[in-house]
Amino acid sequence: MRKIGTKDIEYIAMGSTVLGTGGGGDPYIGKLLVKQAINTYGEASLVNAEDLEDDALIVPIAAFGAPMILVEKLFSGNEFMKAFEMMEEYLGKKIDAVMPAEAGGLNGVIPFAVAAEKNIPIVDADGMGRAFPRLEMVTFTLHNIPVSPIAQADEKGNRNIYHTIDNVWGETLVGATTIQMGGSCAIGCYPMSGKQVKKAAVHGIVTYAQKLGEAILDSKDKNLSPLTSLIKEASAIKLFTGKISKVTIKTEGRWNKGICEIMGLDENQGNFMDLDFQNEFLMAKKDGRPMAITPDLIVLIDAENAQPITAESVQYGTRVVVLGMKADVQWRTPEGIALGGPQKFGYKEKFIPIEELNKN
Amino acid sequence: MRKIGTKDIEYIAMGSTVLGTGGGGDPYIGKLLVKQAINTYGEASLVNAEDLEDDALIVPIAAFGAPMILVEKLFSGNEFMKAFEMMEEYLGKKIDAVMPAEAGGLNGVIPFAVAAEKNIPIVDADGMGRAFPRLEMVTFTLHNIPVSPIAQADEKGNRNIYHTIDNVWGETLVGATTIQMGGSCAIGCYPMSGKQVKKAAVHGIVTYAQKLGEAILDSKDKNLSPLTSLIKEASAIKLFTGKISKVTIKTEGRWNKGICEIMGLDENQGNFMDLDFQNEFLMAKKDGRPMAITPDLIVLIDAENAQPITAESVQYGTRVVVLGMKADVQWRTPEGIALGGPQKFGYKEKFIPIEELNKN
Repeated sequence: MRKIGTKDIEYIAMGSTVLGTGGGGDPYIGKLLVKQAINTYGEASLVNAEDLEDDALIVPIAAFGAPMILVEKLFSGNEFMKAFEMMEEYLGKKIDAVMPAEAGGLNGVIPFAVAAEKNIPIVDADGMGRAFPRLEMVTFTLHNIPVSPIAQADEKGNRNIYHTIDNVWGETLVGATTIQMGGSCAIGCYPMSGKQVKKAAVHGIVTYAQKLGEAILDSKDKNLSPLTSLIKEASAIKLFTGKISKVTIKTEGRWNKGICEIMGLDENQGNFMDLDFQNEFLMAKKDGRPMAITPDLIVLIDAENAQPITAESVQYGTRVVVLGMKADVQWRTPEGIALGGPQKFGYKEKFIPIEELNKN
Repeated sequence: MRKIGTKDIEYIAMGSTVLGTGGGGDPYIGKLLVKQAINTYGEASLVNAEDLEDDALIVPIAAFGAPMILVEKLFSGNEFMKAFEMMEEYLGKKIDAVMPAEAGGLNGVIPFAVAAEKNIPIVDADGMGRAFPRLEMVTFTLHNIPVSPIAQADEKGNRNIYHTIDNVWGETLVGATTIQMGGSCAIGCYPMSGKQVKKAAVHGIVTYAQKLGEAILDSKDKNLSPLTSLIKEASAIKLFTGKISKVTIKTEGRWNKGICEIMGLDENQGNFMDLDFQNEFLMAKKDGRPMAITPDLIVLIDAENAQPITAESVQYGTRVVVLGMKADVQWRTPEGIALGGPQKFGYKEKFIPIEELNKN
């Protein structure tokens, strides 16, 4: 167990944006909420999944909605506590620890606010090791852990409990009301035991996010290149260097969909890379040939400061580097590929690991 | 208190279709569910609102969805019991009696199935005295009774509890998930005390529906005209006699919207009547001039058998009589007109009582 202060949150937020692979919502507002909570209630305690009691009750707490709306529509902060309390009330049990559902984007930091206010630990694990756009797209689903009951709260005061027959229905019903709520809400979901967390979650992901954040933010002080440090820390593959030459983006319900086209620079002069996104970057093609495919991570980096760029904030003319990172081993199983792979998002291409796509 | 057997259900279902004013869903399937429940569990007991204990817990149980889908998509029957049980569990209290939310259409009979199976009474009252398409459009809203908690169950096994900040949000959120569920579900809502029922509900409406049904179904045996008997029993105004000459209908989410055009016969030869509907018939115009306006009831009657026709089953060529009936006094107050009047449905025309519209 270690204490997480406001400085750690800076690093974790930065690393979560990397793991967000363009989606998950910009953590900026989440970071402010968490810092305020830590300043008010004291530091949060991060606990290893392995150290949980088998019968402990763990509940992931998350913001749910379209990334673009999560950035524009402010949270009151209160809705996360409300979702937490509804879950406790509904289960008739005290929650022993919270957890990020996804360590990518906004949701990499949000649960710290609840952990600080409730003075309970937050587990160093999540259900993705990245960001994904649908509620059922978590490693918990691969272990048959039900998403329900789901506690949902919005900033207006609406609060609902869902008990869906499977995890896809959770996405369908909570997605439908979230759109009515204005496009975002807070949820508690996948209540599970410590034993289940140990087996089903992606371990150490918060600490990993923090290390990625440190590589980006602290390298200059050590006279190192932030980009080189990030690539080393993430064991990333540099897929492309270029300038954003075209952006197509639209919001459809909970989805930001589009294509970010990058014109080659340096060794990629004359080439083009297309990043296809549905909230997250899902497919990177160089001159039409796939170079990285979901569930592997595609990370768009601002060449100037080595900081990640979210899909909703890509801008024409920005000089960028595209990185590829291996997905967690759970996503690379046949079941994992079926749940988070390219077919799930309507692509014809089959999943091929980035290390194979970029062999030579 | 009186016992309700399968024969009574025939009359009540017929009368509920009259009070449905074209909407509320055809009670045919509901009637089968209720008869089966009565045959299995015994007759249901109908109790007067005045006879309720002040602190009794009463819960309206209803089918929720688009009338067209309520007719086509079968209920398992089980979802009504599930909604009932979820409400008891959530409130942590036994429900003393059920009630129709609307005595018009399908929902005029549905609660009898739960009452029979649970062996608890059903109250001779509802929240409309007719059918209306939106969850907040009940006299309960006029008395500031909250729709929440709402218990929602579908035939697949999804079951949710909503706690919305007001009654309109109840419609918005439950409406959104109902569409995802395939267009229909069962709900328990507006849990209230016996004291609240006495004050806020439309009393005696089930017995009234039964009398309307008897007028239609039993008159021939008494050598009376079913139509004349119905008009007398309902204190109805005969607005038009004609033949359906055009039908425009479309389903938009939970709404059946359209216009039924009737060409005059008999004394109306040469005239036209347009019935505008959004689930229910809301506006009847003769040659462009309003003759009946919501919340007053517009009832389309098959001239051949004096039976009411629902808006989703209007057919070109049918000979019909259009009747107008006064809305319950609660709907004719300024608050009632604001909640169920023409402005609420987007009409420019102001509400004028049918007796004034048809003076000469």
